[in-house]
Amino acid sequence: MKCTVCKKDAVIKLPRHNLKLCEEHFKEHIIYQTQRVIKHFNMFKKDDVLLLAVSGGKDSLGLWLILKELGFNVKALHIIMPFGKYSEKSLEIVENFAKKLNEDPIYIEANNYLDIDFFKALKIYKKPVCSFCGKIKRYILSTYASRNSYNTIITGHNLDDETAFLLGNVLHWHTEYLKKQGPVLERNQFIPKKVKPLIRITDEEMSFFAKVSKIEYVAERCPYSKDAKSIFFKDILNEIDKYMPGTKSFFYFQYVENIKNNIFMKDTEEPKECKICHYQTYSDDICFLCKIKSKYRG
Amino acid sequence: MKCTVCKKDAVIKLPRHNLKLCEEHFKEHIIYQTQRVIKHFNMFKKDDVLLLAVSGGKDSLGLWLILKELGFNVKALHIIMPFGKYSEKSLEIVENFAKKLNEDPIYIEANNYLDIDFFKALKIYKKPVCSFCGKIKRYILSTYASRNSYNTIITGHNLDDETAFLLGNVLHWHTEYLKKQGPVLERNQFIPKKVKPLIRITDEEMSFFAKVSKIEYVAERCPYSKDAKSIFFKDILNEIDKYMPGTKSFFYFQYVENIKNNIFMKDTEEPKECKICHYQTYSDDICFLCKIKSKYRG
Repeated sequence: MKCTVCKKDAVIKLPRHNLKLCEEHFKEHIIYQTQRVIKHFNMFKKDDVLLLAVSGGKDSLGLWLILKELGFNVKALHIIMPFGKYSEKSLEIVENFAKKLNEDPIYIEANNYLDIDFFKALKIYKKPVCSFCGKIKRYILSTYASRNSYNTIITGHNLDDETAFLLGNVLHWHTEYLKKQGPVLERNQFIPKKVKPLIRITDEEMSFFAKVSKIEYVAERCPYSKDAKSIFFKDILNEIDKYMPGTKSFFYFQYVENIKNNIFMKDTEEPKECKICHYQTYSDDICFLCKIKSKYRG
Repeated sequence: MKCTVCKKDAVIKLPRHNLKLCEEHFKEHIIYQTQRVIKHFNMFKKDDVLLLAVSGGKDSLGLWLILKELGFNVKALHIIMPFGKYSEKSLEIVENFAKKLNEDPIYIEANNYLDIDFFKALKIYKKPVCSFCGKIKRYILSTYASRNSYNTIITGHNLDDETAFLLGNVLHWHTEYLKKQGPVLERNQFIPKKVKPLIRITDEEMSFFAKVSKIEYVAERCPYSKDAKSIFFKDILNEIDKYMPGTKSFFYFQYVENIKNNIFMKDTEEPKECKICHYQTYSDDICFLCKIKSKYRG
């Protein structure tokens, strides 16, 4: 198998793109794909002040490298969660990778920043831990970025993450989530613009990118995520894509480029301002976190 | 395992309904479920003039029996397709079952009724044979019912048929099909009301109903249906339902009872009248069939 570009030995086959690539041209291909997405969706430009959420997984670390290679002015933010050894290892991996990149990320301890105890707050929230953790991290990212004048938040969600989420939301017809899903969430008065430059790259491709880029990353799943729904949906979608090649990607991009705005976004509710912390809130005058905090403190 | 109703030996377990049933009470259960759907969706009443599409498969024959048991005034219509031995066997099975029920169905030869040659017309239509066959059969059913004053057309689509179709349409975002999908399609100026009373019953349950009711049916797939997409989607949905019980049914009923009207039906286009045969048409002034016929005859 020879590389389509340079005719050296190819190391990976990308049937979606009808390409066989060597390590060097595979890396170039991933970087180019990301660049195209950033441009196509008008995500950000060279003079934007960018905040990248870095967990320590293959996607966010890979994306950090890609954005540096592309010459973007990006600051990484790592949120330290209170998940024992798992969180310690994640922090260590981010620190090591930052050294390699000669970067100085921001580190925020979730409990500290929010002035809560995660697990006590979770008991009040009463929903699955992954859902609470995601909400907490989005809160921290959004408020930190706003307060510190970052105009765009970048996350490492890839095609498999996004399609798995879309399928789950469609099967349960979660219209409120469907309205918010996509590669770009425009800023509103409460949160900066949020973008996902890896939405054309699959899990498999990002793993391979990390491998050929010699990125050491956290491969284990968080020990608190008992819920494997997203992995289940990823498998289902890969099964569908194997049977009908291209369906996964079509399902996602047709949704975000046509269906979402033309069908799901009609009569969309505007967010209100939380009376306590000024974050966004949809159902009440007080946001989810301030509601928890008020119960929490009696 | 004992029957939940009579404590005799149970022959089937229905976890969805938390029931174990003997043959007698399983049959009763299926008939009752169908009756509830007919009432809940306001499908038809005792004095409606009903036309039931009967293919010779387990669903349409089972539904015929159920509707007779429930005392509805129903006439069966079997469309004879030009698919050689498969069509001959289907006809024979319908004739035998009609004798058992002491019924006298209507038989319509598709080629004759439409004054076409199916396979020549298919070449002009240029889409998959199953799609053309379905379109042809809907055309015959609708026009025959209208001309002969039947006010409601009944088909034997079950929960698995419907959810497989819904999933396929969502994955490809076929919004025009999504707008028309559901247990009830209200009449318009061109076609009578169309209803699907079996939408709460699964494939497995209908097979078992046919077995305990000693219904001889066509179990083989049509030899012309090379495309196994619907079977693939049925398997996928059963996999999802096994992992998250209730998802298949929720996906369908939430769609038809809420999402369809509130989200997909906004700004729906009204059908126009075909200038030649007066059937409905959406894109042009002439319907799909008359367009084929005009090409067909040069």
